[in-house]
Amino acid sequence: MSRIVYVNGEYLPEEEATVSIFDRAFLMADGVYEVTSVLGGKIIDFDGHIARLERSLNELDMQKPEAFDDLLSIHRELVAKNAIDEGMIYLQVTRGSAGDRDFAFPDPEVVKPTLVLFTQSKPGLADNPAAKTGIKVISIDDIRWGRRDIKTTQLLYPSMGKMMAKRAGADDAWMVEDGKVTEGTSNNAYIVKDGKIITRELSTDILHGITRAAVLRFAKEAQMKVEERSFTIDEAKQADEAFVTSASTFVMPVVELDGAPIGSGSVGPVASRLREIYLEESRKVGI
Amino acid sequence: MSRIVYVNGEYLPEEEATVSIFDRAFLMADGVYEVTSVLGGKIIDFDGHIARLERSLNELDMQKPEAFDDLLSIHRELVAKNAIDEGMIYLQVTRGSAGDRDFAFPDPEVVKPTLVLFTQSKPGLADNPAAKTGIKVISIDDIRWGRRDIKTTQLLYPSMGKMMAKRAGADDAWMVEDGKVTEGTSNNAYIVKDGKIITRELSTDILHGITRAAVLRFAKEAQMKVEERSFTIDEAKQADEAFVTSASTFVMPVVELDGAPIGSGSVGPVASRLREIYLEESRKVGI
Repeated sequence: MSRIVYVNGEYLPEEEATVSIFDRAFLMADGVYEVTSVLGGKIIDFDGHIARLERSLNELDMQKPEAFDDLLSIHRELVAKNAIDEGMIYLQVTRGSAGDRDFAFPDPEVVKPTLVLFTQSKPGLADNPAAKTGIKVISIDDIRWGRRDIKTTQLLYPSMGKMMAKRAGADDAWMVEDGKVTEGTSNNAYIVKDGKIITRELSTDILHGITRAAVLRFAKEAQMKVEERSFTIDEAKQADEAFVTSASTFVMPVVELDGAPIGSGSVGPVASRLREIYLEESRKVGI
Repeated sequence: MSRIVYVNGEYLPEEEATVSIFDRAFLMADGVYEVTSVLGGKIIDFDGHIARLERSLNELDMQKPEAFDDLLSIHRELVAKNAIDEGMIYLQVTRGSAGDRDFAFPDPEVVKPTLVLFTQSKPGLADNPAAKTGIKVISIDDIRWGRRDIKTTQLLYPSMGKMMAKRAGADDAWMVEDGKVTEGTSNNAYIVKDGKIITRELSTDILHGITRAAVLRFAKEAQMKVEERSFTIDEAKQADEAFVTSASTFVMPVVELDGAPIGSGSVGPVASRLREIYLEESRKVGI
């Protein structure tokens, strides 16, 4: 059975899900997105993702799609139609198609946003074996645009970064700007030193991770020390542990950086514990 | 009659021209493009645009579309089918659709590039009245990614820049990085001082304009002095003239920068003469 996806009000088999070649996301990356995880058929951190979506739209003077207030029911409908137990729901809003190409934004009275959602079934997502062994990262230059706090579809460089990592025999890349780590290609980056969790402070330099916010909240509730500041690759190499967070990987330990082991080179207690807490707490509040 | 466009081997009415929602240009701006102008039904600088397209593809490890060697005939077919006398042909290649979303590049043996072309009829393009009055530009920060020499569809910021200009009562924006002008939102930027044409040298900071190359060649042939180096906004304000070049505007005089007139505040002789030469020479070599 083919996957059922959502495009502008319609539920369609994935093979029939298309957009105009004039859609502004296709022609000029004029789109924003969110990825929300599903655990046990429940949607995790829905409100956080929708709040961030709204912020992305506002920052770009992009209209809310007409179905904005129905997004929860659309998410649930897709979970049901595709029998998703564990996995992700991808959502994208674009500035729509004006039927031609023009750098100027189209008249919002005339051209309505495009709304696309689809599921990705990932059985075993919470039990991902990579969380037991940890992942390897390399460092690369961060050459992305300056507004990484807006979750746009301008993902070519993160995609290239993932390929650089793959070619180097690693799983992901951490991006470095002015000597400091910004974030991973699709996740926020953390190190642990002497019991303290260190992660870059929020700014336009990084995505304001929804999972990041939840994990830091849980860490503080568990009396762990958290320091929000940037760190260097050298500091990361001297750390006791490292990890990343994202909606689809939750808390994922990092055990190697540029070919050198971090700490013991195996999954550390802080990352393990945070993953456990995050999954436990998220399951409780999934909707 | 609706416009006929080209999508992956088919000539279609524009309303039927779609791509999968999983196309990588739609989901992650994994696409490159070219815009070629048409004058008197002839295609201008075709070889230059195709050479740059090939370079963009190579830089991104993207395959050539199957129809790569037929691009001239596709361009000509579209010009004929849509009876284009003056206007543009837009071409976009994407890494295709793997039928799902993944940061990693799909296997090039399995997933083939998407190729889309469409025309934009612009009667009177060569006689654009703006060339007689000149355009107004504002300066904005250049916050784009670091590989502007690759002509990718990551055009959200240039699009935003065009809107910033519009809101400020201007026509376009010049982007500034580390105190120096990089380029316009969709064109290369020039100033003229004491008879010398000054434009930023080629690097990864700017697009290697096909029109730029032609205009500089014509300028040198006409014994004009050319200096390839970056310049500041202050220097531009003190210049005798300013202009931009692009495939769709050819040579377009700039008469105002951040609200202040440049030189006399009207179109200068160097920009006028270069536009004339460019149009004359281009018409001769159009194919």
